[in-house]
This record gives sequence, C-alpha cells and structure tokens, in this order.
Amino acid sequence: MCKAHVLSVASAKAPFEKTTIERRNLRPDDVLIDIKYCGICHSDIHNAYDEWGGGMFPMVPGHEMAGVVTAVGPEVTKFGVGDHVGAGCFVDSCGLCEYCLSGEEQFCTKGVINSYNSLDYDGNPTYGGYSQKIVVREDFVVRIPDALELDVASPLLCAGITTYSPLKHWNVSPGKKVAIVGLGGLGHLAVQYAHALGAEVTVLSQSLNKKDEALSLGADHYFATSDPATFSELTGRFDLILNTVSANLDVNAYLSLLRVDGTLVNVGAPGQPDKYHVFSLIMKRRSIAGSLVGGIRETQEMLDFSAQHGIAPKIEVICADQVDEAFERILRSDVRYRFVIDMSTL
Amino acid sequence: MCKAHVLSVASAKAPFEKTTIERRNLRPDDVLIDIKYCGICHSDIHNAYDEWGGGMFPMVPGHEMAGVVTAVGPEVTKFGVGDHVGAGCFVDSCGLCEYCLSGEEQFCTKGVINSYNSLDYDGNPTYGGYSQKIVVREDFVVRIPDALELDVASPLLCAGITTYSPLKHWNVSPGKKVAIVGLGGLGHLAVQYAHALGAEVTVLSQSLNKKDEALSLGADHYFATSDPATFSELTGRFDLILNTVSANLDVNAYLSLLRVDGTLVNVGAPGQPDKYHVFSLIMKRRSIAGSLVGGIRETQEMLDFSAQHGIAPKIEVICADQVDEAFERILRSDVRYRFVIDMSTL
Repeated sequence: MCKAHVLSVASAKAPFEKTTIERRNLRPDDVLIDIKYCGICHSDIHNAYDEWGGGMFPMVPGHEMAGVVTAVGPEVTKFGVGDHVGAGCFVDSCGLCEYCLSGEEQFCTKGVINSYNSLDYDGNPTYGGYSQKIVVREDFVVRIPDALELDVASPLLCAGITTYSPLKHWNVSPGKKVAIVGLGGLGHLAVQYAHALGAEVTVLSQSLNKKDEALSLGADHYFATSDPATFSELTGRFDLILNTVSANLDVNAYLSLLRVDGTLVNVGAPGQPDKYHVFSLIMKRRSIAGSLVGGIRETQEMLDFSAQHGIAPKIEVICADQVDEAFERILRSDVRYRFVIDMSTL
Repeated sequence: MCKAHVLSVASAKAPFEKTTIERRNLRPDDVLIDIKYCGICHSDIHNAYDEWGGGMFPMVPGHEMAGVVTAVGPEVTKFGVGDHVGAGCFVDSCGLCEYCLSGEEQFCTKGVINSYNSLDYDGNPTYGGYSQKIVVREDFVVRIPDALELDVASPLLCAGITTYSPLKHWNVSPGKKVAIVGLGGLGHLAVQYAHALGAEVTVLSQSLNKKDEALSLGADHYFATSDPATFSELTGRFDLILNTVSANLDVNAYLSLLRVDGTLVNVGAPGQPDKYHVFSLIMKRRSIAGSLVGGIRETQEMLDFSAQHGIAPKIEVICADQVDEAFERILRSDVRYRFVIDMSTL
C-alpha cells in the first residue's frame, strides 16, 4: 500500500479537504501513476453533490488524469517508469464480454469500474484523480504523446473522448455538415475534432459572445440559438448535431435542423426528461441518440489524433485549494473552457 | 376527364357519401387504374376527422389501392391494359432532387404529393383510393405480382411498405433480435417481414390475447406489456424495436429493452409528445428514430418480397356502405387486421 494525498469531500456538497488515502500494492499488471494534472469535469460536480444519487462518501472525484509512471508490476509490458500516461473515466472491466473484447469497455456487460464513486471488483471503493497517485491496470492506461503537455492532455481523457467518439461513430468526414450545440468544455473540443475530421462545422450557442473564439477553433459558422431566425435559416441543414449541453432543450426545434437520416446525439444528460414529437423523427427518418465516452483503444486513438492535429483544450490551471471555487464558477459557466488542477499544489 | 364513383366526406367527421368526381385526362405518362380494392389505414381516420389539421374537404381518403390498368398514355412504357397494379401514399414528386433521384421520393425536397388531402403540382386537390378509378403517373404505379390477390395486396401499399422499409433500413437479418410493438394492421405485417428476413422476432402486445396468432405469423416469442416482469426479463435484449402503436408509450421502459447500439423506430405518431431520459440513450448508445413509408422502388421490392415469401395481411373485406362502421371498429381495435373496401360495391 502507498499513501496518496487527495482532495476529498466527506458528504454531498461538503467542501473539499486535503487528506490521504491508501492506494493498493501493485498487482503484476498494475501501473503506479504520479498524477501531475487532473481536469474538472461537470460530472464531478453531479457526483460530489450527489445529484445522480448513489454517491459513495468520502469521495475523491476526478477522471481526467495525466501524469508520469513511477512504478510498474512485473507483468506490465506496455509502460515503463517515466512514461507520460493518462487514465480516464474507468479503471477496469470484465475483459471477457463482447464489448470488452471489441474495445468498447464502456459497455461492459458486467459493468465497468468507474475511476471513482464505484466499487471495484475486489469490493473496495474507487478514488479518482484529485490525488497525487493512482494505481491502475495497464490495460486501462493510455500513452500521452510527446506533443501534448500533461496539463492540456488531462481534459482529453473525458471531454476529449466523449466528443471524439460520437463524431467517429457517426462517420463525420469531409462533406458532412455538423452542428455543435454549446461551446463549453466538451463543445470547444468537439469543434476542433469535427473540423479536423473534415466536416463543415457550425456552432449553436445561446448568444453571439463566443463567436470569434468558435471560429478560431475551426468552426465555419456560428449562430445564436436565442435568435428564432436561427432555426428557420438552418432548417434541414445538418447530418449530425452533437449536443454537449446538459440542460433540457427544445428537442423538436433542434430535430428540425437535421436533414434526412440526420442524428441528434446527446453527450450531456439533463436531470429532467426531454420531450419530442414523433412526427419530428418520422418525416425525415431522423434519430435521437446518446453516446458514452469511448473505449480504451479509441481513447488512445483520440490522443494520437489530437497530437497529430494540434488539438488541445483551452484550460485554466488552478491550485488544489481553488476546487470549491472552480465548481461554483463552472455552475455559472464562468470558465473558458476547462479547469485543470495542478496536483503539485496538493 | 372521366367520372369516378367515390366515397367522400364533406367535412371533418361527416359520414361518407357516395358521389362522383372527375379524374384528369390521361397525360402522356399517365395510367388509368380501375381500383378493385382499397385498404383502410388508420391515417385515413386521422385525416377524415381532421385530427392532424389542414384537412381539405370534400375528402376522398384511401392510399392502399390495388386494381387493373384500363388505359395508358402514349408514353407509358412500364404498364399495359390488364396489368395488376397498385398505388400507395403518394402520386407524384419533383423527380429532380437527391431523394427522388435515389428512389426515396417520400423525402422529396419539393414535397411529395400525397394521394389525397394534398394539392397536386397543378393546384388541384388530390382524391384517394375510396374510388373506382384513379389516374396516376406511371412512375408512381407499382406492379402487383401474380401470386398476390388484389384484395390482400392493397394494404401492402401503406401498411406493408411502412413496416418493410425500416426493417430493411436498419438491417434486420439473421442473428438480429427484433421486437414488434403492437399486433395490428402494421404489426402483423412487420412480424411476417422480420421473420422472413431471418430475425428472431418477439411481439410485445398489451395482453396475451393475440399470442397464438402472433406465433402463427412467424413470431418466436410473445410477451404482454401489461406484465411488468416483461420489462425486467427482456432488458437489453433487442437490436431493433419497431413500434407500430400510435399511442404514447413509456419510452424509457422500451429503450431499456435495447442492447448497445439498439434503435427504437416509430412508424406511428401519437398526438402528444413522447418523453425520454437522455441517460436511457447514453448508457448503451441507443437511438430513437422514425420512419416514413418507403420509396417507389422499395415498394415494388416489398411487393415482390411478399409474393416470394407468401406474406399477406389478414383482411376483412367490406362493402362501400360499411366504411363509417369500419372506422368506428378500428378505433375500438375491433379488426384483425385490416379492412379492405370492395370497390365493386360502390
């Protein structure tokens, strides 16, 4: 066992406190990672505030971890001491089901082990990346390419793969018209990926405030959804709409922007049900879908793709004692676009 | 111009009356069809009762027409006098847009001309198949194979293609698990198509009343949706759920029956919006979709497939003066499974 300094919440909505936990002794296929940076994901707030229910406290959130390997188990073959690596939303899966075998561990039929707020297969709770160290099976560790600094790499482990995976799954490519709803932590990465994949990219954001930034990230067009003219002008335009916003939208209005066989893909989940009229789907054979992060193989592909295309999140690096404040700023949408905790400050 | 005896409603919810209308003189590419049988589709009721708004009265409903060619224009090449033919939900489209060119005229960007309750490109209202005659451009006429009697062929022109098209579009094939929700006019055809396409077919119906009939139509399994155990037993089972019911369902409950990448396809449209929770989609990358009849090419394919596989609707043939009563019986679900009007009784 080794001690790890962590940021922990004792109960739902409690403030963060600095404490220590034990990380397990290295198993033969384990990697010990010194976490250098951990991004703050909106789901960290949902979990720490127990908004989705089932919260396990004390909780150490964090699933956007980037760091350096400091020790490996005797059977580890893929990583060595000093390697730059990351770990994301999950740290184990059964390895035997059709989804694990096909590299989509997020759909593991036994149930994936989330990086925190989850019970590991050995019955112990998992603790996440707001921590200086973590022990992870090598199959759930990814390599961070040299071209990516560890601080900007960390948000890719959730926000990056969450947006990259659906763009790939729904075949975004040259000639396709893609809309990204929301220009936040996820949206500003989605714009970069969709652009790099060759699509014509439109950002749909509440106001015109972020227009210049969206265009500089690679968007071809930008429209404010607060302007009703947007919806008439863009009717039937898009092959794919990637909705990165967790609030309830006027689903029928967004569906009307899809062409025949177009899909509205949600990667954020609002607390209340969404409503749609079946006619909005039938008349142009449209679909509404959801997408959940991505598998380990695709996460590595996403990191390599990001390095190759110079894709990186815009981040604000904070100290360990600023996390409570960062949560509040995220809830006010006062961040462009992702907070990253510098773990050396813990 | 030629006179045609028709069944017409003067206004929303008015009873049917026998009257006559004029059908246009044959244009060079027109076919004159003596309609022998016309199926009654639930949408005929929605339209005749003006439940979807925009009803044009007097109205002659009917878009499941089967009959015999009695005259052709000089440029008609595909049909001759005496041929058994059908016409379905639409009778014209622009012919130039990408959808018309790809044989999916139902998505014509100029707007398809519905067989009734629509304004034709010449500005005249269209009148449907509750009629002894109709004039249709040959490109919107399909050939009824000899193996299909005209009475059983007629419902295929809407109910058949409406269920066949999504099963084909979503790649129903051997090894796939498909659920059909509802065993009515559409559902009882969907079961036959899904079975003939090689899928493992489950019928989900409110009660167990129709179990024997479903199995005789080719279903492998049958479950009552009024039994909550159905939903726990079938969790994560299906690749595709084809919902043929026009009532609002518990969408989340049906989504829970889909496996990863499964799709819930709606071909019926309830009057009120449906609700779903985005989590129901995200966790297994599921989709909700809609499908709208099918193109002319696929309608011909469906008729040929039906003849080849011995697929036919179960019908109750009625006289022209029984249509009001048939509407009422449909609304009470008192039909197994499709009414067909014998036009010789008009």
